[in-house]
Amino acid sequence: MVDILHRVGIKAPASEVYAALTTTDGLAGWWTTDTRDIGDDVIAFRFGAGGFDMKVLELQPDRRVLWEVVEGPKEWIGTHVVWDLDRADDQTIILFRHEGWAEPVEFMHHCSTKWALFLMSLKSLVETGTGAPDPHDVKIDNWN
Amino acid sequence: MVDILHRVGIKAPASEVYAALTTTDGLAGWWTTDTRDIGDDVIAFRFGAGGFDMKVLELQPDRRVLWEVVEGPKEWIGTHVVWDLDRADDQTIILFRHEGWAEPVEFMHHCSTKWALFLMSLKSLVETGTGAPDPHDVKIDNWN
Repeated sequence: MVDILHRVGIKAPASEVYAALTTTDGLAGWWTTDTRDIGDDVIAFRFGAGGFDMKVLELQPDRRVLWEVVEGPKEWIGTHVVWDLDRADDQTIILFRHEGWAEPVEFMHHCSTKWALFLMSLKSLVETGTGAPDPHDVKIDNWN
Repeated sequence: MVDILHRVGIKAPASEVYAALTTTDGLAGWWTTDTRDIGDDVIAFRFGAGGFDMKVLELQPDRRVLWEVVEGPKEWIGTHVVWDLDRADDQTIILFRHEGWAEPVEFMHHCSTKWALFLMSLKSLVETGTGAPDPHDVKIDNWN
């Protein structure tokens, strides 16, 4: 099993970062504008080329959010997306892991870079009020 | 051992991307302005907070560049940085791996995100002529 790892620091209280990870408006502001709560603790994220359904497995206010991918590309099914929040130097530090990939396929390389840009979108949303969610996201390669 | 993986696509010939990975001017245009060839196939990259010495182990024109880290933070020593170039949809695709980390430490999370932003800096340099090398790089957290 292999994991995607990232770290960003956001100049805002943990509560504001947590809200951007746990509310439909927040999520729609940095990941994809087409974000919907479809019940049973599942959030549907849709992009031009497809999307993901995330089951929310754990919520620790201002500390941790944990999702399991229950629908999406086959490489994503069953993987976990973990958001750990901490405070350092007046920033909220996100330690991000998308863990449990079966193989380090080329698609995983792509997703690693996209996650970095979406984390920067989240940072921008919380710090400035403006993120870059799909379809306004930063394009990185021929896959998007 | 764990690896950092990324994928970007650059709208330019592979030869231009290869040049940006193998010339001092190219490297200084996207990673750090303080880039020096110090002989014996070693390139020294210096940043405000330290730096890295890379031994060039392999050069396949327009296809592959492979470095070994011979000086730098202890977590980096002995790791490899691999740049594989391919062509798809009129883009030069970079498959990037920074491989051989002993443990997925917090610093590795940071470096993964920084590499993504530096790859976007490389893309920008080749496509537009302007990258964002240190000290003009995008800051991501309290460590830089």
